[in-house]
Amino acid sequence: MKIVFRNPTRTEQIAGPARVGDVLARLDVNPETVLVIHEGTLVTKDAVIGDDAELEVRPVISGGAGPARCHACERSSVIEVARHRAAYCAEHLVDHVRSQVRDAIDRHRMLSYGDRILVAVSGGKDSLALWDVLLDMGYRADGLYLGLGIGAYSDRSGQVVAGYARRRGAALHTVDLAEDYGYDIPAATGLRNRSSCGVCGLSKRYVFNKVALRHGYDVMATGHNLDDEAAQLLGNVLRWQTPFMARQSVVLPATEGGMVRKVKPLYRLGEREMAAYCVITGLDYVVEECPMVAGNTVLRYKDALNELERHSPGTKAQFLFGFLDRVRDAHFAAADPQGGELVACEACGLPTTSSRDGRAPVCAFCRTRAR
Amino acid sequence: MKIVFRNPTRTEQIAGPARVGDVLARLDVNPETVLVIHEGTLVTKDAVIGDDAELEVRPVISGGAGPARCHACERSSVIEVARHRAAYCAEHLVDHVRSQVRDAIDRHRMLSYGDRILVAVSGGKDSLALWDVLLDMGYRADGLYLGLGIGAYSDRSGQVVAGYARRRGAALHTVDLAEDYGYDIPAATGLRNRSSCGVCGLSKRYVFNKVALRHGYDVMATGHNLDDEAAQLLGNVLRWQTPFMARQSVVLPATEGGMVRKVKPLYRLGEREMAAYCVITGLDYVVEECPMVAGNTVLRYKDALNELERHSPGTKAQFLFGFLDRVRDAHFAAADPQGGELVACEACGLPTTSSRDGRAPVCAFCRTRAR
Repeated sequence: MKIVFRNPTRTEQIAGPARVGDVLARLDVNPETVLVIHEGTLVTKDAVIGDDAELEVRPVISGGAGPARCHACERSSVIEVARHRAAYCAEHLVDHVRSQVRDAIDRHRMLSYGDRILVAVSGGKDSLALWDVLLDMGYRADGLYLGLGIGAYSDRSGQVVAGYARRRGAALHTVDLAEDYGYDIPAATGLRNRSSCGVCGLSKRYVFNKVALRHGYDVMATGHNLDDEAAQLLGNVLRWQTPFMARQSVVLPATEGGMVRKVKPLYRLGEREMAAYCVITGLDYVVEECPMVAGNTVLRYKDALNELERHSPGTKAQFLFGFLDRVRDAHFAAADPQGGELVACEACGLPTTSSRDGRAPVCAFCRTRAR
Repeated sequence: MKIVFRNPTRTEQIAGPARVGDVLARLDVNPETVLVIHEGTLVTKDAVIGDDAELEVRPVISGGAGPARCHACERSSVIEVARHRAAYCAEHLVDHVRSQVRDAIDRHRMLSYGDRILVAVSGGKDSLALWDVLLDMGYRADGLYLGLGIGAYSDRSGQVVAGYARRRGAALHTVDLAEDYGYDIPAATGLRNRSSCGVCGLSKRYVFNKVALRHGYDVMATGHNLDDEAAQLLGNVLRWQTPFMARQSVVLPATEGGMVRKVKPLYRLGEREMAAYCVITGLDYVVEECPMVAGNTVLRYKDALNELERHSPGTKAQFLFGFLDRVRDAHFAAADPQGGELVACEACGLPTTSSRDGRAPVCAFCRTRAR
């Protein structure tokens, strides 16, 4: 059979018929990090595939497929979620995703039905699925897409997002970094040999907040999932960056100075579940990773956590939820010395932290742009 | 050339001549986890090895070899320590190990020259090297070996330790679990399907403390190294076991109830440095891992940290030292609710924590033994 790996794309040949689980083992692929797709549908580790078949092995930066019966209806399942000791059929995986989002929203009072919500959409699985789930649940959610100018990758991302908005009849704001701010990510990175992920994150935070303020949105929603948040926490813990730990949260409240409330309704769901949601609901997303992400340390933290999760399902959730529920406020609340002290940036008027050296305050975005 | 992997032993053939670094890459071996030995001496990644040569690739549970000149004398080096951005010749690697032990002892006032020290020796690289370094530095250090009854592995361990003591003319105490306490580790594990590492650790802590008390030693020294302590911390952090975090330390003070002071003078040195110390000084140690350790979670935490260290040298040290120096006392001091409350065990008289349910206090060792 032919095995097509995506992202980057390569092909392997293996003699069939064979169990999907055995194929993955032979290719040394951690099932926790991929989805396996046969003729457009997910297949589980127990499925036996013929010699003339073609399998797609799709990384989700963490994903796979599982055996057994659906946890809810006893039909055969399409995905196993080891940390819940559960497997789901296509229909009930969608229910599982919605119920975890419901749980996240209720537990932290993230959203109410009166809120005008702005969803930051990149074209990737997480942000599109978030928008989709919020619309299906009846929330008033518009999208915001930021063009980063990263060649064909950005072109395709923009098309995917616009296509989704059109099909759903949903409102979409589009901002283009180059047109509206005079730079794009490759240019900003090349200029000063800066980390592209750093400049990109800074630009997104700034532009998203500005658009949300200008259009009067009550809250911004981002697609950060369990893997993102656990990897972020691991990075902070390995260096014991206690001020960052004090601020790590799934709800960032609005501030008087002009920061819109931010929420992360996917923090209880893994990347694999989000990728499965997209495959099952037919949601077209950009499978390719950003071409500038190579060597990103967060990806290495995800790898490390996935290897631990493979042997001890639940490690990631226990690590993140334990921190949020019991540890952050009890042990790190006082670790953020500059928490809340915001003043207006001299250049753009948006909030920034007061400068310590007595100079006029200029926010990180305006400082970066000035270079 | 022939490549012999140890522990477990297997053999590979690769056409030569080739650079050691390329050989490791071709075999997908992380250089951070092995030592490479050619004709009894360490070789660096840059060494070119002929086709008729035999290389030993020796896991150290984390090890390797490096290029460049010695940090201290400019001679060609035998080992690189990436987190110090340094490489050492054989002579100066020994100096490096001693100076890190010196630093650990001084920084935490672990030992004085008047102290009678009992070193817990297993026959592995860390504990034998610790004993060796302490004797060379002029400390009054005797050894204690505990026979665990794990077949040929224990037999060989006992011989290695006795051989070392004889050659150095050092005093060695030997205790045998089966003879003196009526059980061995395989029996205790098989009986109740318990974790062998759990029973073994409990037995060691108990017997070592008892022997130290009976013979009037001032302090116990154990061979826990940087990798051991960082892996332990990662395990505690992933589960946010805050009472264990409050207690994690490289010096455990003596208590009035009868716990001897315990110190870990190797906590600033990686496993690779300890294995290199043994190879360089010709110190015979048991290279084999304990046959009962398979699946030990601590080994998985070491793997995860080694993968991160490979890309970001210094990760392990930053994680452990940052915790010990800045985080534990500032953020977790109050997290140990039972810290210090010790009473005498009803069965053996040694200290144990007071029981919460009002029953007579019996220590974990006596409870385990009674089963």
